[in-house]
Amino acid sequence: MTGQDTVIALDVGGTSMKCALVGMGGTVLHSHRAPTGRERGPQAVIDTILDTAAELAATPGHRPRAVGLAVPGVIDAARGVAVYAANLGWRDVPFRDLMETRLGLPTGLGHDVRAGGLAEARLGGGRGSDQLLFVAIGTGIAGAHIIAGTPLTGAHGAACELGHVVVRPDGPVCGCGQRGCVEAMASAVSFERRYREATGNPLPAARIIAAVPTDPVAARVWQETVEVLADGLLVGIATLDPDTVVLGGGLAEAGDLLLEPLSAAVAARATFHTVPRLVRAELGDEAGCIGAALLGLERLSQGDD
Amino acid sequence: MTGQDTVIALDVGGTSMKCALVGMGGTVLHSHRAPTGRERGPQAVIDTILDTAAELAATPGHRPRAVGLAVPGVIDAARGVAVYAANLGWRDVPFRDLMETRLGLPTGLGHDVRAGGLAEARLGGGRGSDQLLFVAIGTGIAGAHIIAGTPLTGAHGAACELGHVVVRPDGPVCGCGQRGCVEAMASAVSFERRYREATGNPLPAARIIAAVPTDPVAARVWQETVEVLADGLLVGIATLDPDTVVLGGGLAEAGDLLLEPLSAAVAARATFHTVPRLVRAELGDEAGCIGAALLGLERLSQGDD
Repeated sequence: MTGQDTVIALDVGGTSMKCALVGMGGTVLHSHRAPTGRERGPQAVIDTILDTAAELAATPGHRPRAVGLAVPGVIDAARGVAVYAANLGWRDVPFRDLMETRLGLPTGLGHDVRAGGLAEARLGGGRGSDQLLFVAIGTGIAGAHIIAGTPLTGAHGAACELGHVVVRPDGPVCGCGQRGCVEAMASAVSFERRYREATGNPLPAARIIAAVPTDPVAARVWQETVEVLADGLLVGIATLDPDTVVLGGGLAEAGDLLLEPLSAAVAARATFHTVPRLVRAELGDEAGCIGAALLGLERLSQGDD
Repeated sequence: MTGQDTVIALDVGGTSMKCALVGMGGTVLHSHRAPTGRERGPQAVIDTILDTAAELAATPGHRPRAVGLAVPGVIDAARGVAVYAANLGWRDVPFRDLMETRLGLPTGLGHDVRAGGLAEARLGGGRGSDQLLFVAIGTGIAGAHIIAGTPLTGAHGAACELGHVVVRPDGPVCGCGQRGCVEAMASAVSFERRYREATGNPLPAARIIAAVPTDPVAARVWQETVEVLADGLLVGIATLDPDTVVLGGGLAEAGDLLLEPLSAAVAARATFHTVPRLVRAELGDEAGCIGAALLGLERLSQGDD
């Protein structure tokens, strides 16, 4: 087979998956979105993932060398098994073996947020960081803690769940069952909900953020969101002591409208803490695919076991 | 020189230091306490530490092979420098070089709580754990996160400051300047203070704990302490996802009087979390010296750089 060496990369979400061909240096050469189709059940999703990878592998002009797969939920990266994902309904799917059998290519499997953090650490906003905290602020809020270029997974694949740290013990009930989690008060969804409750106006987060300079309600709800995020980041700083925090996900698209007040709120709260560098993610919604590709390349360089 | 191979180990605290001779397998062969004498200023403390190590090195019947030194504050373990300690007043003390010059023995330097956690992870309550959270609940509250037998230090030597995570945003002011930190509400000092405020009775923590079964005020203040500790541990579980939590420090001497209600309170709060094994430290106040000795042995096995 001739053509450019590439890695097939899939970043699987609850509603859609990002499908990409990534160069050996981490450049995205092609990408598209496809529906995950979770309403068809977990087996159909698994088949779609394998079929999509096979289609990408047949792209003319590319010579696939490895596959990288980023999925949500609990992962056993060492065995290449997706243990559990609440929103996709699967349990103990041996993706690495399935993919290696189907395509004959070394396959790396990882957690979606940790894959995104890995990409940001090596190629994005966290370049040069030795101890990175990546926080994705989107529909939900999740973190990844990356030391010397390697994400920590925790004992049960659940490390760095910074979205589910309680910062307002009397706050609203979170989807996870606790009260006053960071996610329950500062995700894009709760930001939109609080604005809607205050105004009756069901705007998407980006529109509310655009209104912050002129709309006092938008400004107040945004400031509340920033304060909760600052409380959550301070917990991350106290427990992980990173040198850099990279903010990704939809709300981080606000850029300086988020970074400036958030940096100020973190600085105002810090006492003994060494405040890390706070920067925006650079890879946007391609971070997950690029991180998946890095996992595929790692598997390629290790060889089969 | 003849005699048994030993490591000289010092665990330096604000008021006293524990001085020990430790066997190559981690057994304490001799130990005593000496005053730190911080009222004499930082240089005098440094001289005392060096002199004490030299005296231990001259103990008949022992052949010292290495020195291990555990100190509070911010440490640069890679360079062997004690960067800063609020309660001892020193800055940038090159203990490793000072000790290696003075005694001609390889010297390991580490953080006191991380040294204690290291000892518990390898030889104490955390034996067999791959991802350990050690929490020392004494005058203050501090943690150590130990993965595969190695403590994480963080980017600035300040990782795992679980005592300074805010769990009651409207709580009392902490020594660190924040409000409602775990330490401000659940250390031995705050436990004693809250009992004294409720009863006028200035009892030490151990006496109050002994009264829990019969004294309703002691029971209430203890239960409040347990609830705050559970909130703090849940933050540690959400961010670090350990397989085991080892509880040390003075309050952990309460044994099952602490472990049972604390396990119940953690279990009652857990939602998505995988609750780790919760156990008591086994090495008592020798953990710091044993951990210091382990650091000395590591330095010995690495050779000089």
